[in-house]
Amino acid sequence: MTTPPLITGLDAIVHGGDYNPEQWPEEVWHEDVQMMREAGVNLVNLGMFSWALLEPEEGVFTFDRLDRILDLLHEAGIRVGLATPTAAPPAWLLHHYPGVRPQTSTGQTLFGAARQTLCPSSPDYARAAERITEQLARRYADHPAVALWHVHNEYGGAMPACYCEVSAEAFRGWLQKRYGRLDVLNNAWGTTFWGQSYGAWEQITPPRQAPTAINPALQLDFLRFCNDAHLQCYRRERDIVRRHAPNTPITTNFMIVNCKWIDYWSWADEVDIVANDHYLQAEEEDNHIELAMAADVTRGLAGGRPWLLMEHSTSAVNWQPRNLAKRPGEMRRNSLAHVARGADGVMFFQWRASRFGAEKFHSAMVPHNGRRGRVWGEVVDLGRELGELSELRGSTVRADTALIWDWQSWWAMELEWRPTCDHTYLERFRAFYTWLWRTHRTVDVLPPEADLSGYRMVVVPSLYLTTPAAAEELTRYVRAGGTVVVSYFSGIVDANDAVHPGGHPGALRELLGVEIDEFLPLRDGESVHLDNGVSGTVWSERIVLTGAERVLSYTDGPAAGGPAVTRNTVGAGQVWYVSTRPDPDGLRAVLDEIAPPPVVDGLPEDVEVLRRTSDRGSFLITVNHTGKEVDVPARGVDLVDGTRVEQTLTVPAEGVRVLREEGTD
Amino acid sequence: MTTPPLITGLDAIVHGGDYNPEQWPEEVWHEDVQMMREAGVNLVNLGMFSWALLEPEEGVFTFDRLDRILDLLHEAGIRVGLATPTAAPPAWLLHHYPGVRPQTSTGQTLFGAARQTLCPSSPDYARAAERITEQLARRYADHPAVALWHVHNEYGGAMPACYCEVSAEAFRGWLQKRYGRLDVLNNAWGTTFWGQSYGAWEQITPPRQAPTAINPALQLDFLRFCNDAHLQCYRRERDIVRRHAPNTPITTNFMIVNCKWIDYWSWADEVDIVANDHYLQAEEEDNHIELAMAADVTRGLAGGRPWLLMEHSTSAVNWQPRNLAKRPGEMRRNSLAHVARGADGVMFFQWRASRFGAEKFHSAMVPHNGRRGRVWGEVVDLGRELGELSELRGSTVRADTALIWDWQSWWAMELEWRPTCDHTYLERFRAFYTWLWRTHRTVDVLPPEADLSGYRMVVVPSLYLTTPAAAEELTRYVRAGGTVVVSYFSGIVDANDAVHPGGHPGALRELLGVEIDEFLPLRDGESVHLDNGVSGTVWSERIVLTGAERVLSYTDGPAAGGPAVTRNTVGAGQVWYVSTRPDPDGLRAVLDEIAPPPVVDGLPEDVEVLRRTSDRGSFLITVNHTGKEVDVPARGVDLVDGTRVEQTLTVPAEGVRVLREEGTD
Amino acid sequence: MTTPPLITGLDAIVHGGDYNPEQWPEEVWHEDVQMMREAGVNLVNLGMFSWALLEPEEGVFTFDRLDRILDLLHEAGIRVGLATPTAAPPAWLLHHYPGVRPQTSTGQTLFGAARQTLCPSSPDYARAAERITEQLARRYADHPAVALWHVHNEYGGAMPACYCEVSAEAFRGWLQKRYGRLDVLNNAWGTTFWGQSYGAWEQITPPRQAPTAINPALQLDFLRFCNDAHLQCYRRERDIVRRHAPNTPITTNFMIVNCKWIDYWSWADEVDIVANDHYLQAEEEDNHIELAMAADVTRGLAGGRPWLLMEHSTSAVNWQPRNLAKRPGEMRRNSLAHVARGADGVMFFQWRASRFGAEKFHSAMVPHNGRRGRVWGEVVDLGRELGELSELRGSTVRADTALIWDWQSWWAMELEWRPTCDHTYLERFRAFYTWLWRTHRTVDVLPPEADLSGYRMVVVPSLYLTTPAAAEELTRYVRAGGTVVVSYFSGIVDANDAVHPGGHPGALRELLGVEIDEFLPLRDGESVHLDNGVSGTVWSERIVLTGAERVLSYTDGPAAGGPAVTRNTVGAGQVWYVSTRPDPDGLRAVLDEIAPPPVVDGLPEDVEVLRRTSDRGSFLITVNHTGKEVDVPARGVDLVDGTRVEQTLTVPAEGVRVLREEGTD
Repeated sequence: MTTPPLITGLDAIVHGGDYNPEQWPEEVWHEDVQMMREAGVNLVNLGMFSWALLEPEEGVFTFDRLDRILDLLHEAGIRVGLATPTAAPPAWLLHHYPGVRPQTSTGQTLFGAARQTLCPSSPDYARAAERITEQLARRYADHPAVALWHVHNEYGGAMPACYCEVSAEAFRGWLQKRYGRLDVLNNAWGTTFWGQSYGAWEQITPPRQAPTAINPALQLDFLRFCNDAHLQCYRRERDIVRRHAPNTPITTNFMIVNCKWIDYWSWADEVDIVANDHYLQAEEEDNHIELAMAADVTRGLAGGRPWLLMEHSTSAVNWQPRNLAKRPGEMRRNSLAHVARGADGVMFFQWRASRFGAEKFHSAMVPHNGRRGRVWGEVVDLGRELGELSELRGSTVRADTALIWDWQSWWAMELEWRPTCDHTYLERFRAFYTWLWRTHRTVDVLPPEADLSGYRMVVVPSLYLTTPAAAEELTRYVRAGGTVVVSYFSGIVDANDAVHPGGHPGALRELLGVEIDEFLPLRDGESVHLDNGVSGTVWSERIVLTGAERVLSYTDGPAAGGPAVTRNTVGAGQVWYVSTRPDPDGLRAVLDEIAPPPVVDGLPEDVEVLRRTSDRGSFLITVNHTGKEVDVPARGVDLVDGTRVEQTLTVPAEGVRVLREEGTD
Repeated sequence: MTTPPLITGLDAIVHGGDYNPEQWPEEVWHEDVQMMREAGVNLVNLGMFSWALLEPEEGVFTFDRLDRILDLLHEAGIRVGLATPTAAPPAWLLHHYPGVRPQTSTGQTLFGAARQTLCPSSPDYARAAERITEQLARRYADHPAVALWHVHNEYGGAMPACYCEVSAEAFRGWLQKRYGRLDVLNNAWGTTFWGQSYGAWEQITPPRQAPTAINPALQLDFLRFCNDAHLQCYRRERDIVRRHAPNTPITTNFMIVNCKWIDYWSWADEVDIVANDHYLQAEEEDNHIELAMAADVTRGLAGGRPWLLMEHSTSAVNWQPRNLAKRPGEMRRNSLAHVARGADGVMFFQWRASRFGAEKFHSAMVPHNGRRGRVWGEVVDLGRELGELSELRGSTVRADTALIWDWQSWWAMELEWRPTCDHTYLERFRAFYTWLWRTHRTVDVLPPEADLSGYRMVVVPSLYLTTPAAAEELTRYVRAGGTVVVSYFSGIVDANDAVHPGGHPGALRELLGVEIDEFLPLRDGESVHLDNGVSGTVWSERIVLTGAERVLSYTDGPAAGGPAVTRNTVGAGQVWYVSTRPDPDGLRAVLDEIAPPPVVDGLPEDVEVLRRTSDRGSFLITVNHTGKEVDVPARGVDLVDGTRVEQTLTVPAEGVRVLREEGTD
Repeated sequence: MTTPPLITGLDAIVHGGDYNPEQWPEEVWHEDVQMMREAGVNLVNLGMFSWALLEPEEGVFTFDRLDRILDLLHEAGIRVGLATPTAAPPAWLLHHYPGVRPQTSTGQTLFGAARQTLCPSSPDYARAAERITEQLARRYADHPAVALWHVHNEYGGAMPACYCEVSAEAFRGWLQKRYGRLDVLNNAWGTTFWGQSYGAWEQITPPRQAPTAINPALQLDFLRFCNDAHLQCYRRERDIVRRHAPNTPITTNFMIVNCKWIDYWSWADEVDIVANDHYLQAEEEDNHIELAMAADVTRGLAGGRPWLLMEHSTSAVNWQPRNLAKRPGEMRRNSLAHVARGADGVMFFQWRASRFGAEKFHSAMVPHNGRRGRVWGEVVDLGRELGELSELRGSTVRADTALIWDWQSWWAMELEWRPTCDHTYLERFRAFYTWLWRTHRTVDVLPPEADLSGYRMVVVPSLYLTTPAAAEELTRYVRAGGTVVVSYFSGIVDANDAVHPGGHPGALRELLGVEIDEFLPLRDGESVHLDNGVSGTVWSERIVLTGAERVLSYTDGPAAGGPAVTRNTVGAGQVWYVSTRPDPDGLRAVLDEIAPPPVVDGLPEDVEVLRRTSDRGSFLITVNHTGKEVDVPARGVDLVDGTRVEQTLTVPAEGVRVLREEGTD
């Protein structure tokens, strides 16, 4: 049940951060290594932005500095995640090959002096990226410090899509591969609408700005193409590295759930370790719930296996409108909340705060005032604590509820000209997630067509784009006795954003036992009421029951008198449908009726209790987000302070405790 | 007094919609025709977006499909408005002739995969549009189903203005024609301001984005040029069609009052039938008043003759922020409110809801769930009811109040750098219209220089740009005994946006008997008060009386103590001036003093009562927008249910009744 | 102590405005001159926008009209500020040399028909500007009417920065001059961050739009380059004029404090007279304080010497969202408030209101209704009053408080990705200025590295960018017994936006005796409290005392319990630090403890009392911004009405009085 270490030879929770020694004179490196040891750092990511230094002009390489720092780290026993530096194309590349500069949908060229100034389809970029990757891989494949290869950085983050003519040509090639014949494409895209039929492949352009709304199927396929273009860049570098270093794990850092543009389901199998960057939205009151959500999606991508938190921040970031610093203890709670949801490592951007550049006001492990800083103290404490938690490594989280997450629905649902601007994918997903979190229900996040067997409940927030395969799996699961909850605006279109025929929600009409006669979106600020007193906003519908029974009704608004929440019995199971956006308490009132009880009951709100298990044992991680100490029923030994808990684990206000359980499975 | 039918041989109220059979397999066509008959459809618009199908590559035509559908419709007795498909240039045209793609004022090229990707001045576009029009007109001129030609679609809607170099050259040609000599242009445009004098025609560019505010006279002339460029496109196609089909009426669909960019006064005489597209602003509470306003402007363009509602929606649209569905009965009220104001036909976009493309969430006559849909039932009912109203056809609406509407003032007033950003043309026009609507006064909408004889009152909302001819006609009318109401910021500039000399409001100073010493716009949210308790916002003025008498005064604000509303006696008539934006009740209080009483008095608010008359009789159409049944004094026979009304017509809550009157003229 | 006249031979307060006779037929010129004499006008600015008329085609000049108007003005005894017309490049220049058109950071070209359509680095523009300047200077150097040369107009106003390829090349040249070697630049810019190192000068581009945040040091240097590019344009024309007219003063009009993009400290020594354009933000309630602030900054630029108000408005402007007219008496108060703070002249844009063009709704000295206008009466009155104040000319203002103003900090602080979007430079400067204004403390505005000797107090609002020299001067001043007040986010970075090493605020850490462990910006709308009851918003900090003592503490918020306001004793002086944004009353409560008392005490709020002195005497100017008459202790003779004041000067509500003092120094 225990998986092998994420990082070969590192049977501990990973602790460290991005390390950019090139920003500092060499004398600082020695202090760095000394401080890393003080902080219990066991892994640093190196070289992320070093292309211009490693290859100062085309084909000329200077590795001395990197050799020295690698040796220095190795001597200190610190392992290295070595990055390919291709997210930061050097100035000479942009200068000599201007086509590497990407273009926006408005035809504007983006320039350098930032990062990710690159067209993912540029052959000049590809050739240069291959060359530096080849050089690095060849030279360092066998360096004893290198325990991980970190390809690129945050694919698609700053530059999700390029609309240049080279990209257009690549897009056309991608389409030819997908559709084979042009009439198949014309049919799939519905080009008869507004007279958009293509007579030749070369007539197709990316969805560059037009006088009005662009064909949505074209837009959707372009998003898929962009995702694949980035993935192709990743594969190119990964394959080079693998050739040289077949036994070292390779990864790249995801940006769940802040990056809409990458469909990580298609990336999950391409990395040896699922690694994620997560940054709190500092001003959000409930941002620890969003953290848990991101961690659960990440674990879903890792197929339930341990994963690596590749970046988060020790305190404030610098790119939000108001970069609130973390309060004392908050970074620890964040770190251990990730661990609780399956992370086997906690890393930071970055080791030492920069003096210059765009991110000098981003917090780091070593702040501007060095060892005197509050943050440094907490980093050292965290290192010590993670050191005590080595047993946790390789253990996994079990959940009895599945939650469906889908980038394709996110993309399709938020194209222009939908029924209401107030409906967004993340909002609905987060609303359902928040209910599950607040009621202490641990979830597994799955893609739409996944096997659902074995879950006690499946929650489907706004699966606007529903393929027949996804609908079939849901139906099979319900028939076999499962419980499903579906929110409004699910099951509407197929993979090409075409409405399923015969009335909404086409793909799920039979399963839900309802037909939606009309979407009835609400005015800005308008609310309607259900007959249990719950209020709804944003959306309502005129529902015709075609098999389902009415659970709750609208008492006012445009659907007054009609069903609001329905339940359909299919085979041995049941499927519920919620046709409005209830207020949070209302959603909870509705859903608590449906859902199986949480595993640990009677816990106060805003306390996370997660269980990780492996053949080493069962571990209870408790994170208290409240200002009061709380009691959790538990029995075992505190991994950090060694105290024995007989019946009740007392978790201090804003504190975290980790227990090796006794007397449980 | 009865005009000939809008559509030759169709002596009934037109009922139907846009029909796009190319989106559906041929088997659906037969169901379509069957359902059209059920719904009483007698006209469909065909081929609007079919260019790419009819001419799949340059010069290659395939008319089989269109032949078949035309024959099918003809067999079913359904007449066709055949469209030239030039609003949707095919992909091959944009690919082979990239100059067809328009450019924005920022120099950005707009691409296809949408619609209206076209430069109206492009010779390549012109040649291609001529060719397809010629082919269509030649082939179908004598087809017995074709009762109407529908040129293009919504000129200027998605693409009002192109700034490319070809357009620039056309603009210069237009200017040479308008001004003849360059010194005349320099003088008209006031190019001495900011040193903008031109030494050669080729130095003139369209008003492309500049470091700061661009010469307003140039901007105004460019808007006129753009309007004329679209009109020239229309004329080109119309003339081809007319050559082949001299006896079939030709039209294009206007977008009153949602299209600022087309001066439809200059188009009205170019179409055989005035046709309008009207879509409610779904979230506006009083959108039925805006509907009435648009209908009255449309009737004004038709010179009082019957006109055709070419498009509206059966329920929700899809392009507004929140696309609220129409409530049951609302579509009927909308439809008959258009008829009440002179429409002899009620058509919809579109017949059958699309499965794909940008507008699949736009309602249609046949919804996604087909015959089961609420909307379908209402469409069938409407068809039946319109069938009962055939007698109405050809009758006209009489009004004793004239309201001046002017695109040129709208354009000029909203150029940048005016006294306050809070003053807009539509707001003022709608405020005066709303007062007239609420007090049951039926209006004729006229252009600024129209003959005003015979009206009991003329209302002039913000006629910022006032030509000498317009001022003279107003003066002549007042002298002859008329009553005029003028709102602030009228009479300020001439046709080139130059301030009339001698003090504001230059063109109307003598008529109004006032001089405005200074505009005194108000702060955001500020209000001032008049001595009758009415409050005003946005605007006030320091008025010097030079003949007029003071009717109301400002009691506070920057004009405290000065006149706010004035009255001048000129010859046998009177002219009133309102120098602020009174709250709606205040405007009503002020204006009810001035205006002649409404024809039907004592009616409750939010009930429309219109009279259409012809040699077939006099017809009273009543639309009840309230939730309660109302009584209207009337005598006659209900055209739909045949009941006789002796004294009081009871109109159900949210209902409509149409009466053939007896005992009136 | 009296300086020579600003304008040779004009020993009076200057009164006049921009005069654009080319907009009017010649018969109006004679009326203009007559009215100028009525209004006491003694100087007009001529020719600002006349390039296209003076040089209607390249190299062809027509000076007849200008000859005539100069002679006419000379005959009437009105002096002329003759402008080089280079802010309005003629249409032929833009047409023949398209490279003169500037480009935005997004690569968009800006076109003409406006003004300032010019790339300051364009050699074609330079050559043309030289030619017209040479012609004008040669022809009119000795014209007896010409008393002043006015180069260009509002440099950098509409067009602060051009990003075209020619500008890029000039920028690279500027960088080579600044840094000499590329490795010095790489080091200064911190290009190791995000891998941005340059291998050749030609790899550097201006900060054109990029996928994400651009190197801040590059951005900062580009702003410096743009400032210098404009300055180079100015010098080019000035040197030509000076060669021909060595004895006539030369100036250009600044736009303090509304132009962020020009560092006027670098321009101050380049002009013979510091001249400023000032326009009220009409909707701001306290805009007279902003006026005073702009006037004090202007006097600072003039090194304390008299300066010229080159433009303000008689009433409304036309380019703000809501262009409120000035109330009666407001223009007089504005004018004399400028005089009170050292202006020796009061001029207006413009003489006669235009009938056409972009600014026809901008007020003028002669309004659209001419002599009948309210404004005209006030202009005549002002002329008469200024005539009585000639004695004031050449006198100077004394202040005992210095206030540090710095464009470089403004630029650097507002680059993207700072700790909070709520912190802006002008807000903080204005907050401190407002406190000083409200407590009747007269200030001298100085650049950061200025000699501070002799001031009783120095106020430093957010000097984010602090050079070692600036820090040293502050330290020297405090050691010698001075009092300094420093606001938060000061002393953070060096001239290349690199964080000073060792912990914030690096440059001032030792002087302040504090270390900032972390910036703790607040949420939107959040406030914290100090232990004296004052509330703070936007910003707080965790301060570690390293020598300073705690004056006030935070009682809540993220810094609860820590110091909020500190005081450090250094040598004979003291330095105070304020780490949050107190509410205005709170700031006052804090600062009144620190500051020396005002010179005149016990005055009511919103009354300005300034003293100007020269060898002609001491003059007290009092401006009453309240609606009640106020008494000011004073003794002397009213310069306007000649009344003698023994003890108390009564200033009428909203009035102004100017006294020649007796019995004071």
